[in-house]
Amino acid sequence: MFPGNIAGMYNDLHCQMISFTCDYAEGAHPLILKALCDTNMEQLPGYGNDLYCLRAKEKIRRACGCPEADIHFLVGGTQTNATVIAALLRNYEGVLAAETGHIGVHEAGAVEYTGHKVLPLPQHQGKIRAEELKAWLKTYYADANHEHMVFPGMVYISFSTEYGTIYSRAELEAIHGVCREYGLPLFIDGARLGYGLASLQSDLDLPALASLCDVFYIGGTKVGALCGEAVVFPRGNAPAHFMTTVKQHGALLAKGRLLGIQFDTLFTDDLYGKISRHAIDMAEKLKEILHRKGIPFFLESPTNQQFVILSNQEIERLKPLVGFDFWEAFDADHTVVRFATSWATPQENLDKLAALL
Amino acid sequence: MFPGNIAGMYNDLHCQMISFTCDYAEGAHPLILKALCDTNMEQLPGYGNDLYCLRAKEKIRRACGCPEADIHFLVGGTQTNATVIAALLRNYEGVLAAETGHIGVHEAGAVEYTGHKVLPLPQHQGKIRAEELKAWLKTYYADANHEHMVFPGMVYISFSTEYGTIYSRAELEAIHGVCREYGLPLFIDGARLGYGLASLQSDLDLPALASLCDVFYIGGTKVGALCGEAVVFPRGNAPAHFMTTVKQHGALLAKGRLLGIQFDTLFTDDLYGKISRHAIDMAEKLKEILHRKGIPFFLESPTNQQFVILSNQEIERLKPLVGFDFWEAFDADHTVVRFATSWATPQENLDKLAALL
Amino acid sequence: MFPGNIAGMYNDLHCQMISFTCDYAEGAHPLILKALCDTNMEQLPGYGNDLYCLRAKEKIRRACGCPEADIHFLVGGTQTNATVIAALLRNYEGVLAAETGHIGVHEAGAVEYTGHKVLPLPQHQGKIRAEELKAWLKTYYADANHEHMVFPGMVYISFSTEYGTIYSRAELEAIHGVCREYGLPLFIDGARLGYGLASLQSDLDLPALASLCDVFYIGGTKVGALCGEAVVFPRGNAPAHFMTTVKQHGALLAKGRLLGIQFDTLFTDDLYGKISRHAIDMAEKLKEILHRKGIPFFLESPTNQQFVILSNQEIERLKPLVGFDFWEAFDADHTVVRFATSWATPQENLDKLAALL
Amino acid sequence: MFPGNIAGMYNDLHCQMISFTCDYAEGAHPLILKALCDTNMEQLPGYGNDLYCLRAKEKIRRACGCPEADIHFLVGGTQTNATVIAALLRNYEGVLAAETGHIGVHEAGAVEYTGHKVLPLPQHQGKIRAEELKAWLKTYYADANHEHMVFPGMVYISFSTEYGTIYSRAELEAIHGVCREYGLPLFIDGARLGYGLASLQSDLDLPALASLCDVFYIGGTKVGALCGEAVVFPRGNAPAHFMTTVKQHGALLAKGRLLGIQFDTLFTDDLYGKISRHAIDMAEKLKEILHRKGIPFFLESPTNQQFVILSNQEIERLKPLVGFDFWEAFDADHTVVRFATSWATPQENLDKLAALL
Repeated sequence: MFPGNIAGMYNDLHCQMISFTCDYAEGAHPLILKALCDTNMEQLPGYGNDLYCLRAKEKIRRACGCPEADIHFLVGGTQTNATVIAALLRNYEGVLAAETGHIGVHEAGAVEYTGHKVLPLPQHQGKIRAEELKAWLKTYYADANHEHMVFPGMVYISFSTEYGTIYSRAELEAIHGVCREYGLPLFIDGARLGYGLASLQSDLDLPALASLCDVFYIGGTKVGALCGEAVVFPRGNAPAHFMTTVKQHGALLAKGRLLGIQFDTLFTDDLYGKISRHAIDMAEKLKEILHRKGIPFFLESPTNQQFVILSNQEIERLKPLVGFDFWEAFDADHTVVRFATSWATPQENLDKLAALL
Repeated sequence: MFPGNIAGMYNDLHCQMISFTCDYAEGAHPLILKALCDTNMEQLPGYGNDLYCLRAKEKIRRACGCPEADIHFLVGGTQTNATVIAALLRNYEGVLAAETGHIGVHEAGAVEYTGHKVLPLPQHQGKIRAEELKAWLKTYYADANHEHMVFPGMVYISFSTEYGTIYSRAELEAIHGVCREYGLPLFIDGARLGYGLASLQSDLDLPALASLCDVFYIGGTKVGALCGEAVVFPRGNAPAHFMTTVKQHGALLAKGRLLGIQFDTLFTDDLYGKISRHAIDMAEKLKEILHRKGIPFFLESPTNQQFVILSNQEIERLKPLVGFDFWEAFDADHTVVRFATSWATPQENLDKLAALL
Repeated sequence: MFPGNIAGMYNDLHCQMISFTCDYAEGAHPLILKALCDTNMEQLPGYGNDLYCLRAKEKIRRACGCPEADIHFLVGGTQTNATVIAALLRNYEGVLAAETGHIGVHEAGAVEYTGHKVLPLPQHQGKIRAEELKAWLKTYYADANHEHMVFPGMVYISFSTEYGTIYSRAELEAIHGVCREYGLPLFIDGARLGYGLASLQSDLDLPALASLCDVFYIGGTKVGALCGEAVVFPRGNAPAHFMTTVKQHGALLAKGRLLGIQFDTLFTDDLYGKISRHAIDMAEKLKEILHRKGIPFFLESPTNQQFVILSNQEIERLKPLVGFDFWEAFDADHTVVRFATSWATPQENLDKLAALL
Repeated sequence: MFPGNIAGMYNDLHCQMISFTCDYAEGAHPLILKALCDTNMEQLPGYGNDLYCLRAKEKIRRACGCPEADIHFLVGGTQTNATVIAALLRNYEGVLAAETGHIGVHEAGAVEYTGHKVLPLPQHQGKIRAEELKAWLKTYYADANHEHMVFPGMVYISFSTEYGTIYSRAELEAIHGVCREYGLPLFIDGARLGYGLASLQSDLDLPALASLCDVFYIGGTKVGALCGEAVVFPRGNAPAHFMTTVKQHGALLAKGRLLGIQFDTLFTDDLYGKISRHAIDMAEKLKEILHRKGIPFFLESPTNQQFVILSNQEIERLKPLVGFDFWEAFDADHTVVRFATSWATPQENLDKLAALL
């Protein structure tokens, strides 16, 4: 009943070709693995009460310029989004997000599963606009029946967005301004925060971003860690007993050290910034290659995700040679595909790609 | 505003003393770390579609003698319990569990958060009894108003239990028999499955256990892994689209490789069994030491958790010297404490403990 | 601290003018009140086990031509929608509905509160189209990432819709056909079912409608009852223990007689049909008046709700004279308003309205 | 396929015998029916914005001595319990209740369905004790792991309880005192509030009760109304947007008048008090009869529910002659049964019962 040879059975699945499919294809930055190995046999308290978690939190507070910040380490993005959103909303409230926002599309209804509606806002290359947010809120409160509708309880944006775009400081200030006007917390999904901030077009850094929202997270999974997202409440403004909420969501790691050690490493000597900038360097080179080859762009992304339009014929040709991600149909004969760089992308892979195209 | 010296600030928190506080104090078995390092720069598909996950699943199927098993890797125990229970129950059903069951006590209401009641059964050193389960069900269905009550939808037991005890084959058969009679799936929380099966008193092995329940999980977090629980539906009986349910619960790891590589290692050359037996060897020696020192036992546990009664005075003396866990007050002057061994416990720590007591 | 005269204090609130604001402005049809009075002191079992409930169910089965139908009486529309949808969906599924569907807009997130996403479909005067439903489903299943998205689990339509429109037999057959093709139950919100079926343009009757869906309800609240909706599973296809689900949702009335007596009356001598036709007669006359006065229609509704466009100036003039409902802004100077007739509308009110316009 | 004669088919179901089964066997007090008939054709605003709702609220404020009270009318008890509890608890909190509390036993898990655990307290004839509540809270907060447990977020008691017992003023003050000490809202389920306050043993009235809790409801369903419970937040302390929460729970009646008119009638000329006292008069006579006949009492109830122990043989004899409710097995040969009086019980029924026993 079992096949004879386990060892050999999946060799064909092992991806030998180069891949630009996503930014979570490799394991962790080697310094993270080294730190995990170095500390492995230390006996530490569980649930995030170890010194590495404490140290990582202190380093993140410094990096964000937020000495009062409450910081919690969770394991993954969907989990973090659902946990933070459920903790901040009251029962009768929903969360406003771009209609392309990850929480509204690709999280299997995790937010709704906690009882809250995702209220869609118009999107522009993955971004929302302050004036449209304000218009939505004005219309909502002007509706005589709005008490029969889901109240807007917070605003969710991603930085960088699902389309690789970023908000400028002015744009973020405007959105944050509307949020304050209406008493709505602003939550930034930073699954790709490193790449967003490292973008050549970004005029924001961690302290600026922290000052312009009410909660955000620093994505580890896609930026050099095995797993882990660091949730930051910049002004000590975590909801009461947030740790219990994290536990209730199944998001509290027994061996919290796994997250603490990783973020301690990422925030030592600015490793997080350095590897994010590497991904952006590689993305700029990737864009140059794609432009040079005359491949049309679906949109201009200033971060590590590049969306281009390929003919379906070209896609068939490339498929066995290089990994990339199918995004959406463009027309009958063309498809939008994504090429992503990451902290781990070597120059060599770009050279190979250039040769293939 | 920030203290001057991060490097030194938490040194005092670093636990220099030996600890028997829990079985998740260290990192991972060195072979796991080695495997993570060896495979680190391989580019692999996400979300558990990598070859290591596939290989680990195949090895687990063999170890369980279940060629048709559906296997899913989740990150932690509370998360796994809530996800499996919510996936199996219909809306109007609850889960029966010992009143000391982990899901009813120490998971911050994670099961209720998914909308289901935990229905308490009498416990005997952490175990339920088939005849009491049957009596409960008979009483329930005999109640003319039972349609106004939460229906029993499944049975949850832990192996080993929260008190370190285990079910014999006969006991498990009897419970499973009642479950089948009433059409209730039986779910075994195996956060400490390795230690339960390795117990000198156990007359069960993985295939026997798999044949006597409808779903169980093989705990990694407490048995040598950094994190991870392998959920096994032994007869290909996973609920439809269980992967989407896992995603909805925020329990689907983007870098599924982290779990696949760990379980692949644990199920190579029976590492899981070997390290579990080591913990039991250490526990037997620990029991001998405690008996020799005349320390009264709260109950007789055949696994890696030992519960003894210490005077509060003795506790104060020992606290700065050795780590252990406070369980519950025994009387005004005495407390039940737990000493746990694990895959990582060295003989040396036992010797030190013997000297201290 | 209390005002001196309760009796007089709210007299000004008492609406003396005629109202076309909604179809739930009056109490109940006099025959219903009579039946409540006639049976008042009979001692009856609770929770829907009384003879009036049983008799009403039997009469509804006959009216629908569904001898096997499971029928449950609930109290109101939002409650019924949330209860039925939660009972039919599995955890990882959502409900497809027109973007104007009541469940997605005006039920305060009641469906999401049960953990399920409302998946919006394009609407055309409140209706969905079979071909667009099919296209949505095709796109969904063609998406490589659809397992990270909410599964479509059922389809919700309203009859008549929130804009007073109705589906033709051919349209309903086409939608039902797509539903069967994809294994999706079709649920018809019949809060205004009587008015929909009584429409001069309707080519459907109760048996036809029942045969073209999997569950629907016969609205009482808006069609002559004090409260109450009769949920019909036409082919005995109610989910297991649906009564317990109703109880869990707080929707099981202790004095179920209140609902049984009302529906027994409504389905005696076709009272439901008669009073629905009266409302349609009145609506046709209302349309004639509005047309005659040259008031532009927002859309052509064949049922009891009429949507017209008034200048804001005209609205100010009419407001103190006649009740109507504000629907949505049309442009800076005009507003869409709703005039509704009902089972209770007298000819006299139409005459008064004609004089006022 | 249909039986030939609907009219006659259920005649045998019609209960001709006298019944003491429950306090919701009849319809409504005749004055309520009269008021419904008198106001029937008035056109009124929906959703509780009509003058009868406003007037009823004002009368209730006066009766409670709470000029600032927020008052909301809901339809039934389970619904009210789930809505109020979900509105007051934060996500990580549960509700403390006697283990016999209605919310924990006979509401089909409605509270858990909203995501919250019911935390059981010891019960004494249906009542909790202040000192046991305090001990529970002390133990909870003393537990080093309490952050991994469900937080106590409010206390629920019923008045009168499920066993017909009532709290004295001193007992209620003590419980309320513990609640204030720990910052927990106290919620009183008043499904049978009228009968509790009218008890000859009660030293509480509405204003006293209102001053000793944070929210309670005045039960209508079991005290003379067709349906309806009036939720009172005595000091204007309703949670924000409670009306939207009510809507979200499917508990907002479109024809709110149905509730307003009933409570307006019940609180005119103290009808609520008068009919409650009638039920108590009848209960006292019932007790006398039962005592005279030498029937052993299960417990001494001072309200309208009487629990006695009958031999199973006697039960068989009485079953076809008089209605009563089976409560629980007493021993192999005896059963605890409940006889209930209500606002509607005539002296004649007591005489008949006396003759039968």
